[in-house]
Amino acid sequence: MSAREAGQRPGRTLDVEILAIDGTARSRKDDAVVTEEPLELRFTAGSSSRVLGVTMRTPGNDFELAAGFAFGEGIVCGRDALAAVDYCLDPAVEAAQRYNVVNVTLARPDLPAVARLDRHFVSTSACGVCGRAQLDSLRERGIAPLDDATAVSAETIYSLPERMRAAQRVFASTGGLHAAALFDASGELLALREDVGRHNAVDKIVGWALMGDRLPLRATVLMVSGRAGYEIVQKAAVARIPIVCSVSAPSSLAVELAREFEITLAGFVRGSRANVYSASARILSGGPERS
Amino acid sequence: MSAREAGQRPGRTLDVEILAIDGTARSRKDDAVVTEEPLELRFTAGSSSRVLGVTMRTPGNDFELAAGFAFGEGIVCGRDALAAVDYCLDPAVEAAQRYNVVNVTLARPDLPAVARLDRHFVSTSACGVCGRAQLDSLRERGIAPLDDATAVSAETIYSLPERMRAAQRVFASTGGLHAAALFDASGELLALREDVGRHNAVDKIVGWALMGDRLPLRATVLMVSGRAGYEIVQKAAVARIPIVCSVSAPSSLAVELAREFEITLAGFVRGSRANVYSASARILSGGPERS
Repeated sequence: MSAREAGQRPGRTLDVEILAIDGTARSRKDDAVVTEEPLELRFTAGSSSRVLGVTMRTPGNDFELAAGFAFGEGIVCGRDALAAVDYCLDPAVEAAQRYNVVNVTLARPDLPAVARLDRHFVSTSACGVCGRAQLDSLRERGIAPLDDATAVSAETIYSLPERMRAAQRVFASTGGLHAAALFDASGELLALREDVGRHNAVDKIVGWALMGDRLPLRATVLMVSGRAGYEIVQKAAVARIPIVCSVSAPSSLAVELAREFEITLAGFVRGSRANVYSASARILSGGPERS
Repeated sequence: MSAREAGQRPGRTLDVEILAIDGTARSRKDDAVVTEEPLELRFTAGSSSRVLGVTMRTPGNDFELAAGFAFGEGIVCGRDALAAVDYCLDPAVEAAQRYNVVNVTLARPDLPAVARLDRHFVSTSACGVCGRAQLDSLRERGIAPLDDATAVSAETIYSLPERMRAAQRVFASTGGLHAAALFDASGELLALREDVGRHNAVDKIVGWALMGDRLPLRATVLMVSGRAGYEIVQKAAVARIPIVCSVSAPSSLAVELAREFEITLAGFVRGSRANVYSASARILSGGPERS
């Protein structure tokens, strides 16, 4: 995974080197992960300019995203209300972040009175927004990389999705919930929480640990249903969970955060296969590694 | 679907009457949808009290959610930092909303200097938060129920997931993206957008329409991958999309909004079956309705 160069436009996907595990076999290969980067939405009218929203998004159709946001929030009512939509050319914005800031110029003399709406808990730096700001913000809070020496067998990792589903069946009645489950290193379930929001399910797990005085969560594995975005890895870093697994894909920023904080991130955990995106030494398997 | 009574604690699921369509057959039945309601997180230290976050959540383990939020955001570092976690007893909070406000009392003399973090674009009323506030906020903006007389055949509805997947295959390279597709009433694809965030994919569709001067989106069908939360229905109401379909489950608040704004909401669109949660007259099928 190479950071894109300053001034280069971010792509829809990013190639990363992964460890593919399949039964007892291990092999290194390249895989594409979907890009997740913040987009800052600035609005200008007359001589005023303000950031009215920040969202984590996949680059592409950014002007449509800005226009759709503006329409949905009642900032504009039609095409005529938009004077211009462009990437930010403000020289104060670092070149590397220019494609993460869109400026919408309104065809009205002043900005509407709307509250700023941030779709995620995104840290912004003075010079714009980027994945870097998320990393820096955690570091400033004193969150260090994990040196947890826990190791888990590949067989245990493969068993987690079914263990989570079995626990969910006990009280499932709709198909509408995300789940987060915490296991110990031998695959024993410690806690399962569900929510319409994946981040909330993880917060409930961390809150359970906090209220039971079980933090930091050393030697545990967090399994989430669905995709793994950066927020899940961020929460794991703060709670000191060394291994995060998902049945589906991680985002580029989730991989970047996991590598930076030395958290083991496994995705596409299905059957007896998984992709390991970071800190793969914590996953043990009998076979030799092939490349 | 009956609103819960004032003072009653919200459940994890809510029973709603749906129209189940299966080939040409139609039948009414009860189905459980997962509850989605806002949770306001208030923090108190010494004589100060402030709302530091609002999130849309499924009721249950609300105190853990509040504690996990506080830990994740660095507001507390351990159990000793929490003096108390309770539902809000403020008499200014309406009885019906008391279970949607949690107050965390900190064991420190003053509140930490953290910015308020709202996980969704949630409208809050002076007296707390509830699904009602979302409806009222749209109404105050002049968004009226849809009187769009568009009708679509059940066969067309059944065909949409595969039409969307076929369009996605053209440029798919990872399993990590949400899709939103806009179709006309005969099932012809008008636009497809993808994003790591489902709401962003829908904003891109609406922005595409705005920039091409195609709003309001009368006589169209919006199909989304994954679940349908209230934000998707809210965006459809503003863009005047009469029919919203999802391959998975809707939330309780999505159903409530769809009924209020007379938007046709279909979920679990799979094979030749679907569940219709609201405004089912827009979906035509050859068979008689059985109950």
